[in-house]
Amino acid sequence: MPLTKGILDNPNAERIRRVADLAKTKARRKSGRFLIEAPQAVREAVELRPEIVQDLYIEIDEDGNTASARAAEIASTVFSDESGDRSRIYVHYVTERVMAAISGDAQGIAAVASSEGMIGRLVDMDPGRLQHDADAPLTIAAFWQVRDPGNAGTVIRTADAAGASAVVFVDDCVDPLSPKVIRSTAGSLFHIPVLRASVADLLTWNRKHDGEVLAADVRGTESLTPVPLPRLLAKGQTESHSVRSILFGNEARGLDEAILEDCDGIVSIPIYGKAESLNLATSAAVLLYSLAMSSHMRTM
Amino acid sequence: MPLTKGILDNPNAERIRRVADLAKTKARRKSGRFLIEAPQAVREAVELRPEIVQDLYIEIDEDGNTASARAAEIASTVFSDESGDRSRIYVHYVTERVMAAISGDAQGIAAVASSEGMIGRLVDMDPGRLQHDADAPLTIAAFWQVRDPGNAGTVIRTADAAGASAVVFVDDCVDPLSPKVIRSTAGSLFHIPVLRASVADLLTWNRKHDGEVLAADVRGTESLTPVPLPRLLAKGQTESHSVRSILFGNEARGLDEAILEDCDGIVSIPIYGKAESLNLATSAAVLLYSLAMSSHMRTM
Repeated sequence: MPLTKGILDNPNAERIRRVADLAKTKARRKSGRFLIEAPQAVREAVELRPEIVQDLYIEIDEDGNTASARAAEIASTVFSDESGDRSRIYVHYVTERVMAAISGDAQGIAAVASSEGMIGRLVDMDPGRLQHDADAPLTIAAFWQVRDPGNAGTVIRTADAAGASAVVFVDDCVDPLSPKVIRSTAGSLFHIPVLRASVADLLTWNRKHDGEVLAADVRGTESLTPVPLPRLLAKGQTESHSVRSILFGNEARGLDEAILEDCDGIVSIPIYGKAESLNLATSAAVLLYSLAMSSHMRTM
Repeated sequence: MPLTKGILDNPNAERIRRVADLAKTKARRKSGRFLIEAPQAVREAVELRPEIVQDLYIEIDEDGNTASARAAEIASTVFSDESGDRSRIYVHYVTERVMAAISGDAQGIAAVASSEGMIGRLVDMDPGRLQHDADAPLTIAAFWQVRDPGNAGTVIRTADAAGASAVVFVDDCVDPLSPKVIRSTAGSLFHIPVLRASVADLLTWNRKHDGEVLAADVRGTESLTPVPLPRLLAKGQTESHSVRSILFGNEARGLDEAILEDCDGIVSIPIYGKAESLNLATSAAVLLYSLAMSSHMRTM
């Protein structure tokens, strides 16, 4: 039986301040915990990664009822799980002002979870352990120095939807456990492994596992001309490799020339109109989805 | 010769307050003018729609130099155009604190432009006047009740890049002339016509011009089952029609069932992973781009 505590009504309580502090990178790093806001993400965490969830904070209204119906549903999955992983989750009921102190984006429910095992290292990952669709090569969506939390979350969600096997954040990226990133993933952080790597790690890991690294870039370098995406799709892509990693660059700077030179190829998205470029999230959506659909169509 | 005024140093001046006010829908509607911020968008407006640009505000630093090199370049295109449309643009030099009062996102340059003719009505549009690539059917990207300014701008940019001929905002959408929308278009607002329509207008206009309206939706209705996008791509789409409009729904609610029932077909984007759905900007990117690439590949 999960443990229930009384109703918390003091927004200045030490415990509540510690939870709210998890919005900050430093507090997350120090405590080894992170904050999950709102029904969609909390539900996915409780369902798919119950072992990391430590506390649930559920808002109750003035009449003592759960403020959000979706929050009540999540609580009931915790209470009905009498012997599983969910049975050790603490459920705290909190007043509106306490929830406001925890987060402005909780929509009635928030959770605190352990960061342990959430963000692994690519070099430790055995490709055989990654889920992947037999119709398509194992695809890794890699992002170099992604800095905007909204972008980071959106690309994790897109990679998940497109059936990629993992997302890799390369070099110095935004913390994938920041609340804003998690909100933008719409639950996908708990569906797909998110890993860290250096550029060298990414290249070495792919070579070791018969993979290739394709950089998404419009310009290319003196020695590497980009292949337009439609041509790549028409010629049956790279399905001779069992692993395929697509590497996207930073929002403002793209990929450094030295990184491009080290990749196995460059793929560019054509611009049919007058726009100068596409933003990162759009590029990732077009590239990851068209490669995925192309693989699935070939086997239809 | 364009007119230059002295350096403006009073952030509380009536003129400056009126410019800053253009961040608000009401002030834009009342004055018939709108605000364009930052070098990229201002450059595209001055280059492609000089007839609507009325005033340029350029920040100078303490030494009296233009604060941004890109702003200086834009000013020089205005000053060198002695008899054209650009010659009647007023150039105002302003101090840092005046620019800060105008906008926090100007990056050294802002413009005020007339809204007249910026957002037309679809029903007045002759498809023969729309630019379009001979390789693909004339494509219209239509958005029903898009509410988030960042989304609205991003989908205009994506539609432009994918070679769509126009963007249509259907029913009650965010104002496409809000500064946040314009920033997110990255200049595309000045590349591609943005029009308004009701749902009925959109359907009627398409029928009149041998067009069809495809709704983007995952669920469909009792009588209309969505065609998965890969199947649509595989079977050569709908190129029997000379006009194709893709209608996307609201960020949170999608499209109402009654609207879906009135469309000529529904197309769904497959989810290969565990994500529940894609967000609006991602859906638009995947759909518009894969249709565009498919048309171009067929004629390669």
